[in-house]
Amino acid sequence: MARLSRGMARKSGLPPGALLYTGNTQVEKVTIRVMDYDGDGVCEEEPETVGDLLRFKETAAVTWINVIGLHDIEIIERIGDCFGIHPLVLEDILDTNHRPKLEDYGEYLYIVLKSFDSLDNAAETGTEQISIILGDNYVISFQEHKQELFEGLRERIRGGKGRIRRQGADYLAYAMLDTVVDNYFVVLEELGETVEDLEENLVVAPRRNDLQDIHSLKRRMLIFRKALWPLREVVGALGRGDSGLIKEGTLLYVRDIYDHTIQVLDTLETYRDILSGMLDIYLSSVSNGMNQIMKVLTIISTIFIPLTFIAGVYGMNFKYMPELEWEWGYPGIWTVMILISLIMLALFRRRKWL
Amino acid sequence: MARLSRGMARKSGLPPGALLYTGNTQVEKVTIRVMDYDGDGVCEEEPETVGDLLRFKETAAVTWINVIGLHDIEIIERIGDCFGIHPLVLEDILDTNHRPKLEDYGEYLYIVLKSFDSLDNAAETGTEQISIILGDNYVISFQEHKQELFEGLRERIRGGKGRIRRQGADYLAYAMLDTVVDNYFVVLEELGETVEDLEENLVVAPRRNDLQDIHSLKRRMLIFRKALWPLREVVGALGRGDSGLIKEGTLLYVRDIYDHTIQVLDTLETYRDILSGMLDIYLSSVSNGMNQIMKVLTIISTIFIPLTFIAGVYGMNFKYMPELEWEWGYPGIWTVMILISLIMLALFRRRKWL
Amino acid sequence: MARLSRGMARKSGLPPGALLYTGNTQVEKVTIRVMDYDGDGVCEEEPETVGDLLRFKETAAVTWINVIGLHDIEIIERIGDCFGIHPLVLEDILDTNHRPKLEDYGEYLYIVLKSFDSLDNAAETGTEQISIILGDNYVISFQEHKQELFEGLRERIRGGKGRIRRQGADYLAYAMLDTVVDNYFVVLEELGETVEDLEENLVVAPRRNDLQDIHSLKRRMLIFRKALWPLREVVGALGRGDSGLIKEGTLLYVRDIYDHTIQVLDTLETYRDILSGMLDIYLSSVSNGMNQIMKVLTIISTIFIPLTFIAGVYGMNFKYMPELEWEWGYPGIWTVMILISLIMLALFRRRKWL
Amino acid sequence: MARLSRGMARKSGLPPGALLYTGNTQVEKVTIRVMDYDGDGVCEEEPETVGDLLRFKETAAVTWINVIGLHDIEIIERIGDCFGIHPLVLEDILDTNHRPKLEDYGEYLYIVLKSFDSLDNAAETGTEQISIILGDNYVISFQEHKQELFEGLRERIRGGKGRIRRQGADYLAYAMLDTVVDNYFVVLEELGETVEDLEENLVVAPRRNDLQDIHSLKRRMLIFRKALWPLREVVGALGRGDSGLIKEGTLLYVRDIYDHTIQVLDTLETYRDILSGMLDIYLSSVSNGMNQIMKVLTIISTIFIPLTFIAGVYGMNFKYMPELEWEWGYPGIWTVMILISLIMLALFRRRKWL
Amino acid sequence: MARLSRGMARKSGLPPGALLYTGNTQVEKVTIRVMDYDGDGVCEEEPETVGDLLRFKETAAVTWINVIGLHDIEIIERIGDCFGIHPLVLEDILDTNHRPKLEDYGEYLYIVLKSFDSLDNAAETGTEQISIILGDNYVISFQEHKQELFEGLRERIRGGKGRIRRQGADYLAYAMLDTVVDNYFVVLEELGETVEDLEENLVVAPRRNDLQDIHSLKRRMLIFRKALWPLREVVGALGRGDSGLIKEGTLLYVRDIYDHTIQVLDTLETYRDILSGMLDIYLSSVSNGMNQIMKVLTIISTIFIPLTFIAGVYGMNFKYMPELEWEWGYPGIWTVMILISLIMLALFRRRKWL
Repeated sequence: MARLSRGMARKSGLPPGALLYTGNTQVEKVTIRVMDYDGDGVCEEEPETVGDLLRFKETAAVTWINVIGLHDIEIIERIGDCFGIHPLVLEDILDTNHRPKLEDYGEYLYIVLKSFDSLDNAAETGTEQISIILGDNYVISFQEHKQELFEGLRERIRGGKGRIRRQGADYLAYAMLDTVVDNYFVVLEELGETVEDLEENLVVAPRRNDLQDIHSLKRRMLIFRKALWPLREVVGALGRGDSGLIKEGTLLYVRDIYDHTIQVLDTLETYRDILSGMLDIYLSSVSNGMNQIMKVLTIISTIFIPLTFIAGVYGMNFKYMPELEWEWGYPGIWTVMILISLIMLALFRRRKWL
Repeated sequence: MARLSRGMARKSGLPPGALLYTGNTQVEKVTIRVMDYDGDGVCEEEPETVGDLLRFKETAAVTWINVIGLHDIEIIERIGDCFGIHPLVLEDILDTNHRPKLEDYGEYLYIVLKSFDSLDNAAETGTEQISIILGDNYVISFQEHKQELFEGLRERIRGGKGRIRRQGADYLAYAMLDTVVDNYFVVLEELGETVEDLEENLVVAPRRNDLQDIHSLKRRMLIFRKALWPLREVVGALGRGDSGLIKEGTLLYVRDIYDHTIQVLDTLETYRDILSGMLDIYLSSVSNGMNQIMKVLTIISTIFIPLTFIAGVYGMNFKYMPELEWEWGYPGIWTVMILISLIMLALFRRRKWL
Repeated sequence: MARLSRGMARKSGLPPGALLYTGNTQVEKVTIRVMDYDGDGVCEEEPETVGDLLRFKETAAVTWINVIGLHDIEIIERIGDCFGIHPLVLEDILDTNHRPKLEDYGEYLYIVLKSFDSLDNAAETGTEQISIILGDNYVISFQEHKQELFEGLRERIRGGKGRIRRQGADYLAYAMLDTVVDNYFVVLEELGETVEDLEENLVVAPRRNDLQDIHSLKRRMLIFRKALWPLREVVGALGRGDSGLIKEGTLLYVRDIYDHTIQVLDTLETYRDILSGMLDIYLSSVSNGMNQIMKVLTIISTIFIPLTFIAGVYGMNFKYMPELEWEWGYPGIWTVMILISLIMLALFRRRKWL
Repeated sequence: MARLSRGMARKSGLPPGALLYTGNTQVEKVTIRVMDYDGDGVCEEEPETVGDLLRFKETAAVTWINVIGLHDIEIIERIGDCFGIHPLVLEDILDTNHRPKLEDYGEYLYIVLKSFDSLDNAAETGTEQISIILGDNYVISFQEHKQELFEGLRERIRGGKGRIRRQGADYLAYAMLDTVVDNYFVVLEELGETVEDLEENLVVAPRRNDLQDIHSLKRRMLIFRKALWPLREVVGALGRGDSGLIKEGTLLYVRDIYDHTIQVLDTLETYRDILSGMLDIYLSSVSNGMNQIMKVLTIISTIFIPLTFIAGVYGMNFKYMPELEWEWGYPGIWTVMILISLIMLALFRRRKWL
Repeated sequence: MARLSRGMARKSGLPPGALLYTGNTQVEKVTIRVMDYDGDGVCEEEPETVGDLLRFKETAAVTWINVIGLHDIEIIERIGDCFGIHPLVLEDILDTNHRPKLEDYGEYLYIVLKSFDSLDNAAETGTEQISIILGDNYVISFQEHKQELFEGLRERIRGGKGRIRRQGADYLAYAMLDTVVDNYFVVLEELGETVEDLEENLVVAPRRNDLQDIHSLKRRMLIFRKALWPLREVVGALGRGDSGLIKEGTLLYVRDIYDHTIQVLDTLETYRDILSGMLDIYLSSVSNGMNQIMKVLTIISTIFIPLTFIAGVYGMNFKYMPELEWEWGYPGIWTVMILISLIMLALFRRRKWL
C-alpha cells in the first residue's frame, strides 16, 4: 500500500521547485546515453559530464538523451540549466508518484508516463516513471532504472529500417510512447491469463485464498488503471495537435496510439467487470459448499436421533413392557429401525435433499 | 477469456505500421470477390491476383471488393498499395481486436465493425471483425471468414430491386452497416430468450449451475456491449455527415441505423438490469431452500430430543422409582411422549414454522 | 421477456424501408377516424378508403387523422404516399419496438410515444406505440388498438370548450402529448400504491414471494423508465422550438409537459430507490426470521442434552453407584434436572437470547 | 408512500391550464396578507377581496402579497387575472407536487420552492410548497398553511433594520429564498442528530428495528434530496442574472444562497454515504450476534454428546463388562468424563472459539 | 457526526450578512500577525488594534496579515471595513462549515480552504478553515487556531531564500495554497498507513472491531474528500487566470498545485476502492471462520450420534439379545464403534471436510 504514496509526504514544507527524488535509488550510477541521428547516420555516446551534451544541442540532427537513474539531483539540475527546462518540470521528473500528464511549455513538451515490468510484481518494483521532454530537435527521456524497454527502438534507429531515421524528434517521442503502450498489451495479456486461471479455479474448486487473489488482482488493476486513465487524456491532447512541436504527419500516428490506449482501457474495464462477477461466484460457491456439508451432517444426525429414541424406549426399566418378553422383539426392533431409516432416506432423496 | 485479448501482446516491440494478423487463420485461401454495378448492370468476378482489381478502380460504376480471409499479409499489402491506403489502416485491418471505429482519411473512410454469428459461441469463433473502406466509387470490405452475412445484400444487388443499384458507394456501405446491425437483433433475440428461460427456471426451481449460467450470460453481454458502445459513436459520427463521402440522401438512412443501434443498446441494458436482479433472486432462492431443509431437519431433532430424554429417565437404575412398578406405566409414558410430540408439532405449526 | 424484443429479429435481412408490422394484430380491421375542425365547426368521418383523406388535406381547417390498427401494411403505405411521408418513417410506425423519438423532416415532425394501459399488465398488452405526424395543418396519429385514450380530447374538440378549437395543428399534437403524459401519472400512482402495499407487507410479515413481487415490480419500472427517458429528450427538443411547425404560443405549453415528464421521472427514480431499499429489508427480515426459528430450536436441544446426559449416567450399570441406593435419589435427580433447566433458561433470558 | 404522488392522477384527462388543488385543505379560510413598504414606511393589511390588491399594484413601493391556503381556486384565479399571470403558472401553484423550478415569463419570474417543518414528520404534513411570483415591484407568495416561516422576515421589514427596506422586490424574493434555505440547515441538523444517534446505537447494541429506522431515514433523505437538487439549478439560474428582474446588486446575494444550497446538498450526500455504511454494520452486527449465540449453543451440545455416549456405553447390558464390576468404576468414569469436558473446553478456548 | 454540520442551524433566521462565528472558540485572544516584505527587507509586527493595519495598506511592499482566532466578531468587522471587504465575505469567513471556494470580487479574491492536523483526530479538532483574501499588494489570511502550518513559509520569507521575496502578493497566496496541499500529502500518507495496517490485519486475523475501523476510516475519507473535491475546482479556476490578480508568471505554479490536488484525489479514490474491497474480505473472513467452527462442532456431533445409538441398542432390555451373552460382545462392540468412527473420519477427510 505504501507504494501508492511513497515519499509523498517527504516534500511537505519544502519551497516549490525544490528538487527531491521521491523514489528509491535503483541504479548505482546515473547513466546518460545519447543518440544523435539523421537520415545519413547515427552517433551513439555515453558522455561523462552534462557539459558534453551541449554539443548535441546545436546539431540539426535529432538528439535523444536518455537519462537512467534519478537519484543524482545535481545532474538533473545541470541538464535542466543546459536545456532551459523550468524548475517545476525538474521537480516533477524527480517526483516518481506523478500521474501521466502532458504540459506544453512552448519550446518543449513535457510528458510523464508509467511503464510496468509485469503486473505480478507491480506492487514492488514494476512501476517505473518515464519523463519525456520533446524539444524542437531533441528528446530527453528520464527513467528510474529499466533499460531494456527502449532497446528495440534503439535497434531500429541503428538499423535505419522503417520510417524513424527520416523523421524528426516528434516521431521519436511518438515511437517511445508507442513502445510504452505496446508494452501495456503484454501486461494486459498477463493479467487476462491470471483472471482466466482464477475463473477456471473458481468453477472447478474454490479455495480459501481465492478471495485474497481476487482482492490482490483488483488492486493491481487499480494501479494499472490509475496509470492508464490519465494517459488517455495525454495522448488525446497530443493527437489534437495544439502544439506546433508535433508535425502534421506524426499526428496520424499519435491518434493510432490513442486507439490502442482506448483498447487497453476497454479490455481492462471488461476484466474488472468479470472480476467483480467472480467475487459473487466465489462467495456463493463457498457458502454453497459449506451448506452442503452442514446438510449432510444434519441428515446423518436426523436419521439417528429417532433410532436412538427407540433404543432408549426399550432401555427403560418398566416392569410391564410386553415387547421385551417377545422372542422376536429384538430382531423385530432392528427391522423397525432399519425400515425407519430407509423411509427417511427415501423421503430425503425424493425431496432432493440428498 | 484469452479471446478478449488474443494476440494483443504479440505485436509489442514491432515498429508502427508493421503488418501482423492477430486472429486465427480461419479459411484456407484468401478469396477476393468483386461486384461492379450501376443502374444498368452487374458484373461479378473472383480475380486471381490483386492486379486485376486496378481495372475496376477506373470505372464510374460502384465497385465492391470483398476480401475474405486475412492471414495472407502480402495480398492485403498489395491492395493497400493499389488503392493508396495508409499503412496504419492496413495494420488495423489485420488486428482483429479492434473496437468499432470510424476514421476519415479524406479520400476514403475506414470503418471497423464487429459481427456475431450467434452469441452462444461468441466465446469461440462467433465474433468477426469487418473492416470497410469507403472510397469515392468503391467499397472494400475485409472479413475473417464468414461469407453468408452479406449474401442477402449481394442478392439484392443482383436482383436490382430496391434503391441500391441506383445509388452510389456510400449507399452500399450503409447497406452493409444496416445488415450488420440488423444481425444484432437476431443475436439480441437469442440473448433475450436465454435470459427468459433462465428467469423462468429460477422462479420454478433454481439449480446449482444457474449461477454459472448467469455469470456466462453476463460475460457474453459484456462482449456484445463492448462491440456496441463504440458502434454508437461510429454511426453517430457518420450520420453527422462531416465527410463529403456520404451524400445528403444517404445521411437519412444512416441516422436510421443510429436509431437501431440505440434500440439494441437500450434492450441490452434492460437485460443487464434484469440479469443482475436475477442474481439476487437466485442467491436468495438457494439460501431459502437450504434454510428450509435445515429447518425441517432441526424440527425433527427438536421433537425427538425431549422424548429421548424421557426414555433416558426411565432407563435409570434408581432403586426407588415408583413409576416403574405401575402397571400402566409403560403405556402411560408412551401416551405422554405422543402428547408431547403432538403439542410441539401444533406449536410449530401455529408459529408457521412448518 | 420476449416482449422486450418481440419481432425485432424478423426484420433482419430485409432491405431498408421494407414495411413489416412487428406487433401482434390486435384489432380486426384498420379504422381511420378523421376530425376536421376550426373555430367554427367540427366534421367527423370514418372514410372507407385512403383516397377519401385527400379531400381533408386541402382544407385550411385542422385535420386529425387517427389510424387504429397497424397490421394492414397497404393502408399505411397509401397514407404515406398521400401525405408524402418518407418510407423510413412508415417503417418506424410499423416497428412497435421503437423508443420514443422526435424526427424533423422539414415539412412534418414525426413523434413516437409509448402509452400504458395500466402497469399491471404492462407485460402483456399494456404498452402501445403511438406515432404522431404533425404537418402544417394536419396531425396523423397511428395506434395499435386502444381507442379510449384520446376520447376525452375528442370530446373537448367536439364541445369547443377551452383553447383547442381556436388553435392550430401544433396545439392538437401538444394536447395528444399532454394526454399521454397525464396518463403516466395514473400508471405512476398505481405503481406507487403497489410499492406502498408491498412495503407495508414487508414490515408486518414478509412472505416468500415478496422477493418475486419486488423483482417483477422492478421489471415493470424498467419498462416504464425505458419509455420515459427518451420522452424527456423528445419533449425537451420540441420545447426548444427549432422546428417552425410548433408556434411560439404553443411552446409554453410544450415546456409545461417537459416539467410533467421530469416530475414523473423523478418520482419513478424515488420509487426505484425505495424498492432497492426494500430488497435489503426483505432479505434481512427473512434471514432474521429463519435465525429466530433456528435459535429457539437450538435452545430446546441445548436444554435437553445435559438432562439426557444425566439420565444416561444413572442408566449405567456399575455395581457400586451409591446414588442409586438412596431413597431420595430419584426425586433428587428430578430436582437437579429441573434446577439445571431453570438456570439455563434464566441465563439465556439474561443474555437476551430468548 | 402515497404522499410522493398524492393526487397526481386526479388531473389526468383535464385540459391544460385547468385549475385543481392537489393538496389537502389545511387552513379553513384563505388569508391574504399584504405588506407595502419603501425606505420611508411600511403598510400592512389583510384585504378581504382580491380587488383590494389592485391598489397596491400601482404604488412605487415594494408590495408583498402573501396568500396562505390554496384550496379556494376562485381567489387564485382572480389574483391571476389581476396581475396578468399565465394560466399554466396558476395550475402549477395549485399542483403541490411540483419540484422546485424557475420560469421566466418576461414580466415576472415564477419560482417554486419546498419548505420542511421538520423532517421527522416530513412524511405527513411537513412538506409545504411555496410559490413566489416576482414582478417589477411586487412579490406574490403562495403557501399551503404555514405562517411562521416568514415571520422573522416580516419583523425585519417592520423594524427597518438591515438592507431590506432600502432594496427592491428582487431583494425581498432573495430574502424569502434565503429564509427557506436557512431553514434547511435546521432540518439538516435534526437529520444529522438522528443519524448520529442511530450510529451510536448500532455500535453499542443493534436492535431489531434499527433496520427500519435506517430505511425510513433513507426515505426522508430521498424526499429532502428530491426538493434540493432542482433547487440548486433554480438558484444557479437566478444567480446567472439572465432576467432583468434581479438587479446587479442582488445577484451577489443570490450567489451566496447557491453556496448554501451546495453546502446542504454536500452534507446530505455525506449523510447518505454514512447511512449506507451503517446498513452494512447493522447487518454484520446482527449476523455476528446470532452466530455468537449459535456457537455457544453448539459448543454446549458438542461437550455433552461424547459424555452421553460414554454414559450410554456403560448402560449397555453385556454380560462381560469388566469395568462395571470395578469398585472405582463409577467415580473413575466421572473423572474421565470431567477430564474430557475440561480438555474440550481448553481446546475450544485455545482456538479462540469461546 | 455533529461536526459535519456544527452550528449550521444557529444562523437560521438571521438577516444575510449577519456575522456569527459558527466554530468553537479555540484560542483565548485573537492575534494579528503582520509581515511586510519586499526584495530588500522584512518587517514583522503584532499590532494591538486593527487601526494599525492601515499603515501597511499604503506601502508598495507585500503585506501579509494573518488573523488567528475568529471568535471576536468586532475585530473581523473592523478589518472588513478597513480593507473594503464585502459583508458576505466576512459572514463566510466566520462560518467555518464552508466548503472550499473561490470568489472573485474584482479588487480582491476570496479563497476558502480546509487544513487537517492529522486525520486521526479530524473528527474532533483537526479540521481548520483557512480564508485567504488576496488583494493587489496584500494577503489577509484567517485561521481558527493553528499557527504552525505557515511557520515554514514565514521562515522562508524571513530568510529571503527562494523566489518568494522577489514576487508579489499573488505568489504569497500561491505559497500558502501550496503549503496546505503539501500538508494533505502528510495526511494522505497517514491514511495510507492506516489502510495498509488494517488490510494486513484482515488477512492475518480479522477481529470483531475491524468492521468499525473500516467504517470510521471510510468516514474520515468522506470528510477529507469533502474538502478536496471543491478544492480541485478552486485551484483549477485560479489556474485559468481569469482574474488579473494572479500574474502570468505565477499561473504556472498554480497549475502545479492543481496537479498535486489531482494526485491526492486520485490516491484517495484508490484507497476508497481498496477499503470497499476490504469490507468484502472482512465479512467473508468472519463468516468463513464461523462456518469453520460450526463445521468442526457438527462433525464431532455427527461422529458420536451413531455411536450413542449403538450404545443405546445394547442398553435395551429385551430378553433375547444373543449378543449380550457373547463373551467377546463388549470388546467386539468397542471395536465396531471405533471402526465406525475411523471410517467416518476418513470419509470426512476424503471429502475435504476436515
